[in-house]
Amino acid sequence: MTFTADDWPIAAALLQFPGTTDRGPVQDAPAAAWVDAFTELHEAGFDDVDLTDSWVRIGDLSDTRLQEFGEALRTAGVRAPSVSAIRRSVIDARHGDENLAYSHRTIDAAAALGCSVVSVGLHQALTPAQQEQLWFWTVEGHHDPTDDRETWDTAVRRLRELGQHAADVGLLLSLEMYEDTYLGTADSSVRLVEDIGLREVGLNPDIGNLVRLHRPIESWREIAEKTLPYANFWHVKNYYRDEDRARDLYVAMPAPMEFGIISYREAFRIAIDAGFQGVLCCEHYGGDGLSVSATNQDYLRRHVLPKHSGYSLGTSRVAQGSPKDGAQ
Amino acid sequence: MTFTADDWPIAAALLQFPGTTDRGPVQDAPAAAWVDAFTELHEAGFDDVDLTDSWVRIGDLSDTRLQEFGEALRTAGVRAPSVSAIRRSVIDARHGDENLAYSHRTIDAAAALGCSVVSVGLHQALTPAQQEQLWFWTVEGHHDPTDDRETWDTAVRRLRELGQHAADVGLLLSLEMYEDTYLGTADSSVRLVEDIGLREVGLNPDIGNLVRLHRPIESWREIAEKTLPYANFWHVKNYYRDEDRARDLYVAMPAPMEFGIISYREAFRIAIDAGFQGVLCCEHYGGDGLSVSATNQDYLRRHVLPKHSGYSLGTSRVAQGSPKDGAQ
Amino acid sequence: MTFTADDWPIAAALLQFPGTTDRGPVQDAPAAAWVDAFTELHEAGFDDVDLTDSWVRIGDLSDTRLQEFGEALRTAGVRAPSVSAIRRSVIDARHGDENLAYSHRTIDAAAALGCSVVSVGLHQALTPAQQEQLWFWTVEGHHDPTDDRETWDTAVRRLRELGQHAADVGLLLSLEMYEDTYLGTADSSVRLVEDIGLREVGLNPDIGNLVRLHRPIESWREIAEKTLPYANFWHVKNYYRDEDRARDLYVAMPAPMEFGIISYREAFRIAIDAGFQGVLCCEHYGGDGLSVSATNQDYLRRHVLPKHSGYSLGTSRVAQGSPKDGAQ
Repeated sequence: MTFTADDWPIAAALLQFPGTTDRGPVQDAPAAAWVDAFTELHEAGFDDVDLTDSWVRIGDLSDTRLQEFGEALRTAGVRAPSVSAIRRSVIDARHGDENLAYSHRTIDAAAALGCSVVSVGLHQALTPAQQEQLWFWTVEGHHDPTDDRETWDTAVRRLRELGQHAADVGLLLSLEMYEDTYLGTADSSVRLVEDIGLREVGLNPDIGNLVRLHRPIESWREIAEKTLPYANFWHVKNYYRDEDRARDLYVAMPAPMEFGIISYREAFRIAIDAGFQGVLCCEHYGGDGLSVSATNQDYLRRHVLPKHSGYSLGTSRVAQGSPKDGAQ
Repeated sequence: MTFTADDWPIAAALLQFPGTTDRGPVQDAPAAAWVDAFTELHEAGFDDVDLTDSWVRIGDLSDTRLQEFGEALRTAGVRAPSVSAIRRSVIDARHGDENLAYSHRTIDAAAALGCSVVSVGLHQALTPAQQEQLWFWTVEGHHDPTDDRETWDTAVRRLRELGQHAADVGLLLSLEMYEDTYLGTADSSVRLVEDIGLREVGLNPDIGNLVRLHRPIESWREIAEKTLPYANFWHVKNYYRDEDRARDLYVAMPAPMEFGIISYREAFRIAIDAGFQGVLCCEHYGGDGLSVSATNQDYLRRHVLPKHSGYSLGTSRVAQGSPKDGAQ
Repeated sequence: MTFTADDWPIAAALLQFPGTTDRGPVQDAPAAAWVDAFTELHEAGFDDVDLTDSWVRIGDLSDTRLQEFGEALRTAGVRAPSVSAIRRSVIDARHGDENLAYSHRTIDAAAALGCSVVSVGLHQALTPAQQEQLWFWTVEGHHDPTDDRETWDTAVRRLRELGQHAADVGLLLSLEMYEDTYLGTADSSVRLVEDIGLREVGLNPDIGNLVRLHRPIESWREIAEKTLPYANFWHVKNYYRDEDRARDLYVAMPAPMEFGIISYREAFRIAIDAGFQGVLCCEHYGGDGLSVSATNQDYLRRHVLPKHSGYSLGTSRVAQGSPKDGAQ
C-alpha cells in the first residue's frame, strides 16, 4: 500500500505558535489553550500536526498532562504523526547529557501519543548574534568540530541509543539536516546514518535549511539524490534565492513551496524512486507561516504527490514508518 | 455588531490607475472613463474602492462633476468607503496652506460621496532622486524636522482642525504612517494622535511603508502592538525582505500579503484585541497590483478575518467608523 | 475572430524537462518517453506545448521519428502551436552556418507537425562562467558586435531567408529578445525586424529576459510599447526585482506572472491595442517551473485575457498566425 495525494500524511509545524504568551509558557497552559492552537491549525486545513517542541515539550509533560495533551488533539480532531525536537544536540558540550535524557523522554511521550516518528538534530542554541538578525541563518552559528573522531563517535553512539529506543517502542528516529553540523552536508549526513546503522534511523532532508544560507551552497538536487534514499521524515519548505558571487551577494527569502528554487515536483520523483513513504512536515519561517503551510499542502496534493496508488516505489535504505503501513 | 470575513469592507486602492493617460488627466475625463476603472476593479473582485487621489482628486471636482463621480460609482456597482490623499502634508514648508485647504475640500467631497474615512499623511512630494529609482523608497526622501516644537505643534493643530471638520460631517480622519515623518515610528505616531486628542482622529498603520526600507527597521509586531489600538483605517500590503547587516545589505520586494514578512494572521489578532473595526485598503506597488490586491482580499477573507460574528472585541482608543456601525 | 480567455492558445515550455536523462538523450528515447512528458504537462493543465529544443530537436528527427513525435502529441492529447529554438544564432562566428541549416530543418519539421510559429534568437551558447552560476543571467555572456554593419546585414539576410521559408510553408518566424544581442533592446529589435521587412517575421518580446539582469534595465513598459506592435509570439514570464543603485545592488528572482514587476494586465492592454493575437508560451526558470507555468496560465485566463470576443483590436505591423485564424 502506497500513499497517494489523498492520504499522504502532511503535518503543519507549530513554528508560528509561540512557546510563551502573555499568559506564560504554553507548556503550563490549560489544555484549552492547546485545543485552540490545534483548532486553528485544523481550520487552516490540516488534519495532522507536527509537535514542534519550541511550542510544547511533550517530553517534559507529566503523565496526567500528557493524557490531557492527547485529549486536546482528539478534541480538535487532529493527529500527531511526528515530533520535531529542535536545537537539542546530544553532543552539545554543556547540555549533551541533558539533551539526551530529554530526547529519550520525548520518544516515550511520542509513543504514548501514537506518533510514528521523532526528529532530532545536531544544531545548538541560537547565538546572541543570530537572535538579533531578521533571519537567524544569515550569520554563522554553532559548528560541530571537524576531524574530531571522538565527538563523531559520541554522536553515532548516542543517536544509535535513541534510535534503538525509538525502535523498541515502535517509532522511527529521523535526523534533521542543518548547516555546519555533522548533518550539514549530504555526504556527512549519509555517513552518519550509515555509521549508526539501524533501519529505524534515517534522515530528515530539510533542504530548505541549506539553500537559504548567505554563502555558496550545495545543489539541492544533489542533496536530494544522495539523502532521499535514507529519508524517513521530511521537513519541506522552500526559498527564493539570488546570488552574485562576483559581488559576494547572497539573498534568500522564505517562499511558498511552489515558487522557490527547490522543485518539489522533481524532488518527490527522486523520493519515490528511493522508496520514500514518510510523513511530511510543512515548515515556513516569517510572516503567516500557517497560511503558507496550508497553501503548500494544497500544492503538494494538487501538483506533486502521486494521483493514484500502485505506482512503482523504489527500495529505501531505511524503514518507512507512516501510520498507514503499521510501522508503529 | 462586529464585522466578519463575509462583510468586512476591503477596498482596492487605485495606485495602478494612472492619473494621466494619453487622453489627458483622468481628473478631467468624461465620467465614462471613471466607470471603466471602477468596473475593472469590480470585475477583479472588489465591491469597495479607495479613492486614491493620485488618480482623481475628489476635492478638486466641481459639485456637478462630483455628482457625476458618485453616479459613476453607482453605475459600476462599487462603494467608496475611504479616500486616501497622498503626499499632501499640512506642514509642507511651501505647500502646507494649500494642502490644508485641499484636505478640507477632500473631506467635504468624501462626505458628499458617503465615504466614512479620509486618510492623510505627512509625507511630501517624491524627490527627483526618488523618482529615478525602480522603487522610490530605496533612497531617502523628505524628513520632518526633529526637535522642532513649532512644526510639531502646527501638525497637531492643523490635523486637529481637519479631524474636527471630519467629525462635524460624520467622518473619521486617519493618519498614514510613513518613514521620516512625525508618523514614521510607532511611538511618534501614537504621540501625535494623542496630542491631537480627538476620538475621530486615528492612525492608518501602513506597516508595509516601514518594512520595505533599505536600512534597519522597527519590528512589524511592535509597530502593530503600539499603533493598532489607535487605528481607524488600514492600508494593508506586504513585502519580502532580506537583510545581511554585516554586509550592509537590505533587500525588499512587494509580496502578496500571505507571503511577506508581516503576518497579517497575527496582526489581525492584535487588531481585534485592540478593538479595530475599520475599513481595509489593499495597496500593492509594482506589477499587476490590482490582481495581487484581489488575491490579498481572498487571503484576508479565507484565512485572516473572523469567520463568525460575536467574537470578543477589545476597546479601541479611537472611534471606529465603518459604514456598518453607523459612525457616519 | 479574436481570441478570448477561453481559447487563447497558451503553451508550456519544456524548460524543466531535461534533454538528457540517465537513460540518455530524450532525442533518441522511445516515443513512450515523449508521451510521458506531454502527459505530465497535460495533467498540469496545458493543452498546448511549446517544443523547446533543449528537450528534443524536432529539426534533427528523421521522417519516421517525426511521425512518431506527432503521434506522441496526439496520444497525450496536446497540440504544439510553437517551437522555440534556443541559442542557435545564425550569426554565431563558428556555428552560424550549421545553425542556419538547423533552423531551416526546424521550420520544415514544425510545418509537418502543424505548428504555427517558430521562435529563434541571436543568443549563443552559455559561457563556462554562466554555467557555474545559480542563474546564468547574473554574469555577462556573448555580445553581438556593435557598429559592425556586415554582421548586422548577415543577421538580416539570414533571418529574412528563414522568414521566407517559414512563410512558404505557412508559418511565422518570431525573433526572441535577449540581452546584448541585436535583439537586446526595444529599439534594436524593432530596427532588425523592420530591416528584415517580411510580414511573417515578428518579435517574441521576452521581456523577462531583460528585467532579470544585475544591471540597470530598460523600463518594461517602454519595451512593451515599442515591441508589441511587432510581436507574433510571446514568451511570458516574470521576476521579482530590487535595485539599490547607490550600492550597485541588483537582485532578481523568478516570480509567478501575477507577482513580478511586469504587469501583464497592463502589457496585454498594450498588446491588444497593437493587434496582437499570437501564441503565448509560459516559461519559468528554477524550481517547479511546470507548476508555476500552470499557475500562470490560470492567472492569464482569470485576470488578464479578454473575457469576451468582439473587443476592439489594433492593427499589428506583422502577420498574426495563431491556429485559429488560419494563418498557417
